Amino acid sequence: MVRGRISRLSVCDVRFPTSLGGHGSDAMHTDPDYSAAYVIIETDAEDGLKGYGITFTLGKGTEVVVCAVNALAQHVLNKDLRDIVGDFRGFYRQLTSDGQLRWIGPEKGVVHLATAAVLNALWDLWAKQEGKPLWKLLVDMDPKTLLSCIDFRYITDVLTEEEAYEILQKGRVGNREREAQMLAHGYPAYTTSCAWLGYSDDTLKQLCSKALKDGWTRFKVKVGADLQDDIRRCRLIRDMIGPEKTLMMDANQRWDVPEAVEWMSRLAEFKPLWIEEPTSPDDILGHATISKCHNRVIFKQLLQANALQFLQIDSCRLGSVNENLSVLLMAQKFGIPVCPHAGGVGLCELVQHLIIFDYIAVSASLKNRMCEYVDHLHEHFKYPVIIKKASYMPPKDAGYSTEMKEESVKKHRFPDGEVWKKLLAGQEN
Amino acid sequence: MVRGRISRLSVCDVRFPTSLGGHGSDAMHTDPDYSAAYVIIETDAEDGLKGYGITFTLGKGTEVVVCAVNALAQHVLNKDLRDIVGDFRGFYRQLTSDGQLRWIGPEKGVVHLATAAVLNALWDLWAKQEGKPLWKLLVDMDPKTLLSCIDFRYITDVLTEEEAYEILQKGRVGNREREAQMLAHGYPAYTTSCAWLGYSDDTLKQLCSKALKDGWTRFKVKVGADLQDDIRRCRLIRDMIGPEKTLMMDANQRWDVPEAVEWMSRLAEFKPLWIEEPTSPDDILGHATISKCHNRVIFKQLLQANALQFLQIDSCRLGSVNENLSVLLMAQKFGIPVCPHAGGVGLCELVQHLIIFDYIAVSASLKNRMCEYVDHLHEHFKYPVIIKKASYMPPKDAGYSTEMKEESVKKHRFPDGEVWKKLLAGQEN
Repeated sequence: MVRGRISRLSVCDVRFPTSLGGHGSDAMHTDPDYSAAYVIIETDAEDGLKGYGITFTLGKGTEVVVCAVNALAQHVLNKDLRDIVGDFRGFYRQLTSDGQLRWIGPEKGVVHLATAAVLNALWDLWAKQEGKPLWKLLVDMDPKTLLSCIDFRYITDVLTEEEAYEILQKGRVGNREREAQMLAHGYPAYTTSCAWLGYSDDTLKQLCSKALKDGWTRFKVKVGADLQDDIRRCRLIRDMIGPEKTLMMDANQRWDVPEAVEWMSRLAEFKPLWIEEPTSPDDILGHATISKCHNRVIFKQLLQANALQFLQIDSCRLGSVNENLSVLLMAQKFGIPVCPHAGGVGLCELVQHLIIFDYIAVSASLKNRMCEYVDHLHEHFKYPVIIKKASYMPPKDAGYSTEMKEESVKKHRFPDGEVWKKLLAGQEN
Repeated sequence: MVRGRISRLSVCDVRFPTSLGGHGSDAMHTDPDYSAAYVIIETDAEDGLKGYGITFTLGKGTEVVVCAVNALAQHVLNKDLRDIVGDFRGFYRQLTSDGQLRWIGPEKGVVHLATAAVLNALWDLWAKQEGKPLWKLLVDMDPKTLLSCIDFRYITDVLTEEEAYEILQKGRVGNREREAQMLAHGYPAYTTSCAWLGYSDDTLKQLCSKALKDGWTRFKVKVGADLQDDIRRCRLIRDMIGPEKTLMMDANQRWDVPEAVEWMSRLAEFKPLWIEEPTSPDDILGHATISKCHNRVIFKQLLQANALQFLQIDSCRLGSVNENLSVLLMAQKFGIPVCPHAGGVGLCELVQHLIIFDYIAVSASLKNRMCEYVDHLHEHFKYPVIIKKASYMPPKDAGYSTEMKEESVKKHRFPDGEVWKKLLAGQEN
């Protein structure tokens, strides 16, 4: 089914001025402009299908990721799509282990974000050519082919290909029922939209009250900048949602280890289910509870060290579907629930595919599991997420839901789109 | 003494076509072109002094680091140098914790390499204005000022500022004698020049025989691509240098953990002092013996986990002098010998300052300690390293030895320098 030679790869710096409203603000990122390096891959096939891939950024620095995408392009251009997906592990390694480029990573930071954008576009294209949403492409894929997409380098001490195969075989039991269940009821979500650090108490109350009306039962609050402030905000939310509903906290890497312990002992009275990113994302031994990490090697150790009670995957920080598959399989082996990181631009659109696949084909469990949801910027996507009763409804359109509206991209291109031209002109005056 | 407002920051992509000779080749980097993002900082002071900073890269991707340097420039331009070095900790954190830019790191990969280049230039400028080589600037600095350059975020569970102060106070005992000793005899070095993976056995023999004549007693060999090949090459070197001299091995991240254990059991007969980077640089729990890491948080855990017997700092992968100071102090607390990584372009020139400072003011010991040396590309530096009897002689010129010859930079600019114009034209034909 797969067809065509990659004839063009273009990449664009798209930014949304979210900092103007304090959206997305936390203890470490006080003024984010949610942005993306947006990749478009074209082939010479007659179907005219294109693959769209994004990686999420916070404004400044998106141009650096764009530059890295261009550096990776030579590994993609003129390749036959069949050769890429036919040996996806080999192709993944080629991208991540280029003898010169890997020095500026490896598999982390700018280069890994760029890798994710490129691979996300290829997965989108593959799913479109197969006429399936990405989650369905994965669910229908035979285990051997699926495993041939994963690079097991550096994780075989914890998960071998044989063990991964067994996990997938087990996951087949009851998968039809789980797929039907997903299509009917969707995957449970929680909301982070109410309590960004930059929001006033009034905004917080208003959003929380609306979310309760919309049926949300799980809420996340940003903490970590000022303890008294945190106590006040957590009390406010806990009072509004009542003792039964679920509250999570996220410090976004603000603390040192002793600071985290002290701070959280003060916030314990508000009964958080987890504390997210209490300290440096590189600090495996200092970690606790939940963490978004930059590659499978870090996740592997967090699992080995029993440093996690929940695990957060990210569709754009890890090396696309390929690397996320390896982390889902490791989490299953260790029995740790996966609660994906989402929000930003497009993270919800993408990660819903991965977690729905995880439920149907890997974990077969919803216990202690939920996927983050943030109510921003979906209007710019051609196939936006659909939330019903606080659950993600499985996408039905072919592809990875990565495609943005042409008009949105045009307007928000940095620095020459209409939106930025106006804003930048305003700054100059 | 410090003076001037930063009036200009420029950055240049400088590449040396080392891959043509197989220099620098190892199991993961088969065709490196040793390169640098080269930063020049100018002030409005009348002295006309400039600060030069580099970060080391392997060719492709240098343009991405250049792009990241430009993204950081806004934090440097128009600042008073007094304000920067007067609160160097604050400035360091500003560079590494920019609310938007840190997303594409944080403190790792491209952004951290760019941070190092910028900070290296500032340290060079500071030392030049003080009229001292950098190691001497550090040795003469009072402990409080020195500690005010370090960001202790994420490491206070292992090293507090008070503990660091005590280490520096202890380091004052006998420092005059150690300084005199360094000036007379230099800091012990080992050589990696003989045994790159891409060298033929004949080249290896020839270089090894010459190194023995030049007085070298410690040798490093690259391994990891092919076991039979490694056995042959290690035997060849061990036979040439005899049983008494020191041999080290470096796998450059090639192996999985079980693979590393098996492979090294086969190479053990050649009695290596250490095996360097057996697996992923992110794998703290899987690690053994020696590792080059991307930031102080990773080093902290390697020390906590007793995963290191030797510690390798790097002048360009860590956040310049500032972050290296924190790692030197942690290593001293844990009693782990530091054996710096060097080679590349300029890594020897820079890191000699740090290790000479370490001996005089922190560790006060040469036991099991030595600094890597590679005999490439020194001719492009205005103040190249001086090796006498297999030891680094302390630099006497003011600054951080980071300045390259103007002519060399001009010739090797990528892609428009004379050297690359010729090479690229050759490729087209």
